[in-house]
Amino acid sequence: DFDLTTFASALADGSVKVIDLTFTLSPDFPVIVLPPEFGQASPLRIEQISRYDAAGPAWYWNNITLSEHTGTHFDAPIHWFTGKDLPNNAVDTLPVRDLIAPACVIDCSAQAAADPDFLLGIADVEAWEERHGRIPERNWVLLRTDWSKRQGRDYANLGEGGPHTPGPDSAVMRWLVEERGIIGFGTETIGTDAGQAAHLDPPYPAHHFLHGGGRYGLQCLRDLDLLPPTGAIIIATPLKIVNGSGSPVRVLALVGA
Amino acid sequence: DFDLTTFASALADGSVKVIDLTFTLSPDFPVIVLPPEFGQASPLRIEQISRYDAAGPAWYWNNITLSEHTGTHFDAPIHWFTGKDLPNNAVDTLPVRDLIAPACVIDCSAQAAADPDFLLGIADVEAWEERHGRIPERNWVLLRTDWSKRQGRDYANLGEGGPHTPGPDSAVMRWLVEERGIIGFGTETIGTDAGQAAHLDPPYPAHHFLHGGGRYGLQCLRDLDLLPPTGAIIIATPLKIVNGSGSPVRVLALVGA
Ligand SMILES: Nc1ccccc1C(=O)C(=O)O
Ligand SMILES: Nc1ccccc1C(=O)C(=O)O
Repeated sequence: DFDLTTFASALADGSVKVIDLTFTLSPDFPVIVLPPEFGQASPLRIEQISRYDAAGPAWYWNNITLSEHTGTHFDAPIHWFTGKDLPNNAVDTLPVRDLIAPACVIDCSAQAAADPDFLLGIADVEAWEERHGRIPERNWVLLRTDWSKRQGRDYANLGEGGPHTPGPDSAVMRWLVEERGIIGFGTETIGTDAGQAAHLDPPYPAHHFLHGGGRYGLQCLRDLDLLPPTGAIIIATPLKIVNGSGSPVRVLALVGA
Repeated sequence: DFDLTTFASALADGSVKVIDLTFTLSPDFPVIVLPPEFGQASPLRIEQISRYDAAGPAWYWNNITLSEHTGTHFDAPIHWFTGKDLPNNAVDTLPVRDLIAPACVIDCSAQAAADPDFLLGIADVEAWEERHGRIPERNWVLLRTDWSKRQGRDYANLGEGGPHTPGPDSAVMRWLVEERGIIGFGTETIGTDAGQAAHLDPPYPAHHFLHGGGRYGLQCLRDLDLLPPTGAIIIATPLKIVNGSGSPVRVLALVGA
């Protein structure tokens, strides 16, 4: 029998630390840029309702507009055609126990610094497993690239032919889903897929294999360098938007002190 | 040293259960109705960007508009004038360790069934403490009224002079903040305050004392009847909206099986 009281005490006395992996959601945070013939995600817009004024003398509050995939966000299986007919595939129907799960953090910051189009492959994950052990089932795999440290335009990194940001190749995504049974895959970049992933086979392989397998995505995470390679627990709880394809989220990690 | 691996296993094997305390966020979910001279919160609006169609052949996603206080939501200190000059008083600046905390659940379902304008008082909480012990510091106090079981118009329960829904009186809110050091107060109704709380002294005492004390509110919670009186852990992680007064949230409870 697990003792939640001990857990609560460990949080209260700081022997379990809570780390915020979320970017501040502000109007200038970039959204993914798709080819112009496609619909685009709305950046955050904030419209003040009142601020201790005639419209509300004692209170301050805002209306907001954004997309389900704006800022640090969660992708559900229904987001991709490969997951469209799965059961419980939207943010309002998925099993909530999936929203708290351990993470394996793979450090590819050196590779990403050398090549913005770096693609993670099976060999990279096998090298990680040599040092840290086999990725357990139902774990998040988080790709540390230190991309969240980039400032301004260097973050979206738009260039010739669109965004140039690191991500997984097609073989590793299929393998992580089918051979490792991961619960999801998370990145510091805009999108679980690499910036140039429209040209991979299949296009956008992270979206393709994750969501086709009923798994989840997390993107625009920050500060993955603060996490240990294993042992952190990720809390990522999408809003319960009816039939939602994803949701902006506040992502927290629990780590031992 | 606390063992997070054991915690992860307890979640995975079901010896810790995860309960969803969130209403589905849909366009027909009611928002608070304030007197007409004041600004009003937007209900959820969903605008489809693409759905496996010409606007996005492989993907489905939406833009959404809503207020920071629409659906199951979290109130930060800056929401109220009493908290407006406190440090770290908005959802993007508050300490994230506050977002995971134990709960005391006070069952007032019988009183609320008998009187929709039921006000919780200090005597009610003292009676609860006789049975379950003193409310520990930094706990949520959650007011179970079974209001979340009400259907349609009976939920907002608009009538003569506005909403008629249960909530705390002024004395108990001051006492919970000052004498019990609660981290926040949560309800199943629209608002941490009673429907008629504009007429209390001070008006909206839950908002007044909670936010003036740097504490938080949770409202539109559902199914508080599934929680034990003590021992549940609440995870309520508002979006990191820049200078946000609150946020729609996915609220989860952890309970021993
Ligand atoms: N890669 C994409 C292609 C189309 C739509 C969205 C995406 C995302 O990355 C997303 O999920 O934010
Ligand atoms: N009572 C209120 C008065 C004014 C504005 C908002 C409220 C809420 O209940 C809220 O926080 O949702």
